[in-house]
Amino acid sequence: MYELRTTRRIEFADTDMGGIVHFSRFVIFMETAEHEFLNAVGTSVVMEHDGVHISWPRVKVSCEYKRPARFGDVLDIHVRVVRKGRRSMTYGFVFTCGDEEIATGEMTSVCCILAPGETVRSIPIPSPIAEKVEEAPR
Amino acid sequence: MYELRTTRRIEFADTDMGGIVHFSRFVIFMETAEHEFLNAVGTSVVMEHDGVHISWPRVKVSCEYKRPARFGDVLDIHVRVVRKGRRSMTYGFVFTCGDEEIATGEMTSVCCILAPGETVRSIPIPSPIAEKVEEAPR
Amino acid sequence: MYELRTTRRIEFADTDMGGIVHFSRFVIFMETAEHEFLNAVGTSVVMEHDGVHISWPRVKVSCEYKRPARFGDVLDIHVRVVRKGRRSMTYGFVFTCGDEEIATGEMTSVCCILAPGETVRSIPIPSPIAEKVEEAPR
Amino acid sequence: MYELRTTRRIEFADTDMGGIVHFSRFVIFMETAEHEFLNAVGTSVVMEHDGVHISWPRVKVSCEYKRPARFGDVLDIHVRVVRKGRRSMTYGFVFTCGDEEIATGEMTSVCCILAPGETVRSIPIPSPIAEKVEEAPR
Repeated sequence: MYELRTTRRIEFADTDMGGIVHFSRFVIFMETAEHEFLNAVGTSVVMEHDGVHISWPRVKVSCEYKRPARFGDVLDIHVRVVRKGRRSMTYGFVFTCGDEEIATGEMTSVCCILAPGETVRSIPIPSPIAEKVEEAPR
Repeated sequence: MYELRTTRRIEFADTDMGGIVHFSRFVIFMETAEHEFLNAVGTSVVMEHDGVHISWPRVKVSCEYKRPARFGDVLDIHVRVVRKGRRSMTYGFVFTCGDEEIATGEMTSVCCILAPGETVRSIPIPSPIAEKVEEAPR
Repeated sequence: MYELRTTRRIEFADTDMGGIVHFSRFVIFMETAEHEFLNAVGTSVVMEHDGVHISWPRVKVSCEYKRPARFGDVLDIHVRVVRKGRRSMTYGFVFTCGDEEIATGEMTSVCCILAPGETVRSIPIPSPIAEKVEEAPR
Repeated sequence: MYELRTTRRIEFADTDMGGIVHFSRFVIFMETAEHEFLNAVGTSVVMEHDGVHISWPRVKVSCEYKRPARFGDVLDIHVRVVRKGRRSMTYGFVFTCGDEEIATGEMTSVCCILAPGETVRSIPIPSPIAEKVEEAPR
């Protein structure tokens, strides 16, 4: 699996006094789409694997804004795996509304162990997950 | 100690497409003022006491909106202890901007133990804290 | 029409370091449910009526928290019209997750004209809307 | 003027269930620092110039996360003008906490006219502002 399509309806609280969606909200929209992708491959952003807690802290995010989105718009979100590393995943996102491209983004998450009282530590993506994910064709 | 005065400058991300501060933001402003009050009495919203983790989950919040607040406004926030229970604290809040009352609110927080894997459980407010706090005069 | 049932899946960004949904998020959940109700009666939180812009600023909100909600939970939200005034609507909300009551809330919104450069001014609820809404039975 | 240093105290609502600041919050922190910079050069993110409303919609933002920030941390934020275009400004951000680098970011904002009912349209940065801003030395 290398992609997923989902949607998101813009809520009033997503907007700012400019009358459009606040640009920070797209980061949340990316995160939610990433989590849907993880669910679709049978895991979750917070999961237990072999008795340890695994999560996916983000190390990088970027977003380019093409056109404003507004209250009530339903955004189509297309997530793709643009790079599958040994310990990380990089996702690309395209947000559209009808025929118009609204924004594009990219986010890199690292597979980590969260042990109480310990520093977060990266680990190779557990094979049950790694086997289900592949890089999207260019 | 039974009151504290603080301020908060309205940020762009606090606003919505109505051009004013989104009403949900006042709940955050109350929380931050509560935390400043807890700091002022020498504790914190998350603290260790006798080797256990103590926090103050909210059980009730309310807010009445009188006048809109806008980007760049500096709100004066007046917190008062309106009820000090054995296990809970109820705070009253008045938000003003210059001479104008913007909003009033109330929030009740319960002193609780957070033990990993256990249910949150209320406890009597530890005496080092309880001794420093009193109810505000009417 | 006097009620609506909807759902909301808890997202990662809804949580705080206590491991549960941040209490301010319920205010957003109430707002979104109110907007769904307005849509269901054929209007919107921002609409044009007889050439003027009408909106529903909130004058009061309250919430009581019974049990924590967590990442991934799907909340059932039950909205009811508890009071229909000439110029305002008061909604009651019950949040449940499975068999458990998570929170209850109440919110009052006032029907207002938003004219650019003018002060927000309350008006009687336009009859096409008022006629479709009734108070819920006790 | 080409840089500004400011600080931001992490609030409880900035955190997520991972126990650290939610990564989307850094985008808000960048925005607030940008607005402080605009204030420092005598303008604002929303201002009137020659009778028209000018604002600075963002066209691009990125952030790299080095170390987690936690509740109560006071972040030092260093903003620099990394590119001053005819119609846009690109800011670089470095977030530190004590001696540790927490995150770096970059954001590009375009100077635009907001006329009611019209499409947002980019304009050359008005000279009273442009004259006060310069690119930071490498």
